[in-house]
Amino acid sequence: MQMSNPYLTRRNDSAAIVARVDPVVYEESITQGVSEQQKQDYAKNGFLQIDHLFSAEEVKYLLDELHQMRQDFAVQQRPEAIIERESQEVRSIFNVHRLNEVFKNLVSDERVLNVARSLLGSEVYVHQSRINYKPGLHGKEFFWHSDFETWHSEDGMPRMRALSCSILLTDNSEHNGPLLVIPGSHKHYISCQGETPDEHYKKSLKKQEYGVPDGSLLEYLADMGGIHSCTGLAGSVVFFDCNLMHGSNSNITPFSRSNIFFVYNSIDNQLQQPLGGIKPRPEFIAAREDIDAIQPNNLEL
Amino acid sequence: MQMSNPYLTRRNDSAAIVARVDPVVYEESITQGVSEQQKQDYAKNGFLQIDHLFSAEEVKYLLDELHQMRQDFAVQQRPEAIIERESQEVRSIFNVHRLNEVFKNLVSDERVLNVARSLLGSEVYVHQSRINYKPGLHGKEFFWHSDFETWHSEDGMPRMRALSCSILLTDNSEHNGPLLVIPGSHKHYISCQGETPDEHYKKSLKKQEYGVPDGSLLEYLADMGGIHSCTGLAGSVVFFDCNLMHGSNSNITPFSRSNIFFVYNSIDNQLQQPLGGIKPRPEFIAAREDIDAIQPNNLEL
Repeated sequence: MQMSNPYLTRRNDSAAIVARVDPVVYEESITQGVSEQQKQDYAKNGFLQIDHLFSAEEVKYLLDELHQMRQDFAVQQRPEAIIERESQEVRSIFNVHRLNEVFKNLVSDERVLNVARSLLGSEVYVHQSRINYKPGLHGKEFFWHSDFETWHSEDGMPRMRALSCSILLTDNSEHNGPLLVIPGSHKHYISCQGETPDEHYKKSLKKQEYGVPDGSLLEYLADMGGIHSCTGLAGSVVFFDCNLMHGSNSNITPFSRSNIFFVYNSIDNQLQQPLGGIKPRPEFIAAREDIDAIQPNNLEL
Repeated sequence: MQMSNPYLTRRNDSAAIVARVDPVVYEESITQGVSEQQKQDYAKNGFLQIDHLFSAEEVKYLLDELHQMRQDFAVQQRPEAIIERESQEVRSIFNVHRLNEVFKNLVSDERVLNVARSLLGSEVYVHQSRINYKPGLHGKEFFWHSDFETWHSEDGMPRMRALSCSILLTDNSEHNGPLLVIPGSHKHYISCQGETPDEHYKKSLKKQEYGVPDGSLLEYLADMGGIHSCTGLAGSVVFFDCNLMHGSNSNITPFSRSNIFFVYNSIDNQLQQPLGGIKPRPEFIAAREDIDAIQPNNLEL
């Protein structure tokens, strides 16, 4: 991979912007759960929001499960749980599709899984899963980043053939720190400065210090594509390309923001060795073993 | 004042919410620059936004002056300049209506001054002035607060008969940390816990530790009034009541947010002694000496 790698990053030379060489929508035989128009929008913008994909009852059921898990994990000090530095609250829990029956069923729900299969043009597996809770009043911002830049360098994901799916469990308004994206930014790869230290993930999940894109390159992307807030009611789902530049502002409103986050990767895009000889991140953050294609179900939640 | 003070705060008993006893719009003889409908909206919501009050040429002229001042003050280490902790950039400069000829003229510009005189129903003077610069990429959030709660306790402002006027010098979108307000919150007074230490202002202008409203009371206000973003193009002006609950989220966009901020106070509402026997804040933050009514002008900027 290193020889012909079009996506070099985390080196000590200067930051750079290079063109994406991979497709965004992979044209293959699977087309379910997504229209041709939606495919075109996704190819152009790098994201696709589908409103009302889950009912109010399902949202309530999932949100209750999320809060139950946060409560259980608050006392357990497990590595899958990310604790907010100031408030000591559980902000995220990783690996929920293996740790919890409800989320295990959800990850193969055809409403989300088929969209991933159709856009990535192949069978897929789950690279990463988590639940996120951004508290009201003191929710912190999360700086701009391309997930692929991290997955490529720290996990050895070879190509841009993965996507994220964020299932909104609370209403996301313009006020409570919604997902911000730069439309079209997925067509450009921002290589970041600085070699990754070993076990960087233990810190980076709280505050990113490597893999931070250069400010003037961000300005260049934002001047081209503008900035879009993925606002929507609970039950909406946002799918976005692995290389889409995204982040979020803080949340001083009293209204918390919760979602479930699945990353689907093509079975043809399995992880290799991380860049720069660093140690691979653990299975609960980046799957290397549990990589069988998952089959869609239409179970009632 | 202490005997009959309806707005006690900064004490060690618990936080409280009490009804405002003062008018919002003071019905007197002056009515210029604002319609009856606008007065009613302001009375109900606690704020009033007037778009396009300054032309694009005027905005450019004012923004150039703001940047020139920031540059001059960056090297001077003057107390009027508030430096951002992380970036070491000049975030705010106080007292600009005395330090700078352009802003001295602007503070008496009839387009803003007459709105203040009409809403406060009397002649007014400038309690405080400043320019604000919220940088792109790393602009920090500012937590909810009522200005009056601070001015009452730390400056001894007796009554709610003052307003702020924010002149937007860059476009404020939903993305770059615009002013957030809770409509209707100005009708309620949130008393805050904790006695103010002396010289608190030296810290509080960077990060508020006293005068922070209770989270459940904020939720109560937001459930009643919702949350509104004061978004608008450069040249718009937002007038808001001294007791309106407001704050702003962070700004990770590459687009900075700059404004000029004047506080007009009724000449019938001059400062008394601060609560709790603390030392008054300096003249450049809270005017005690320079309190003559200012007369409107219609000079070209």
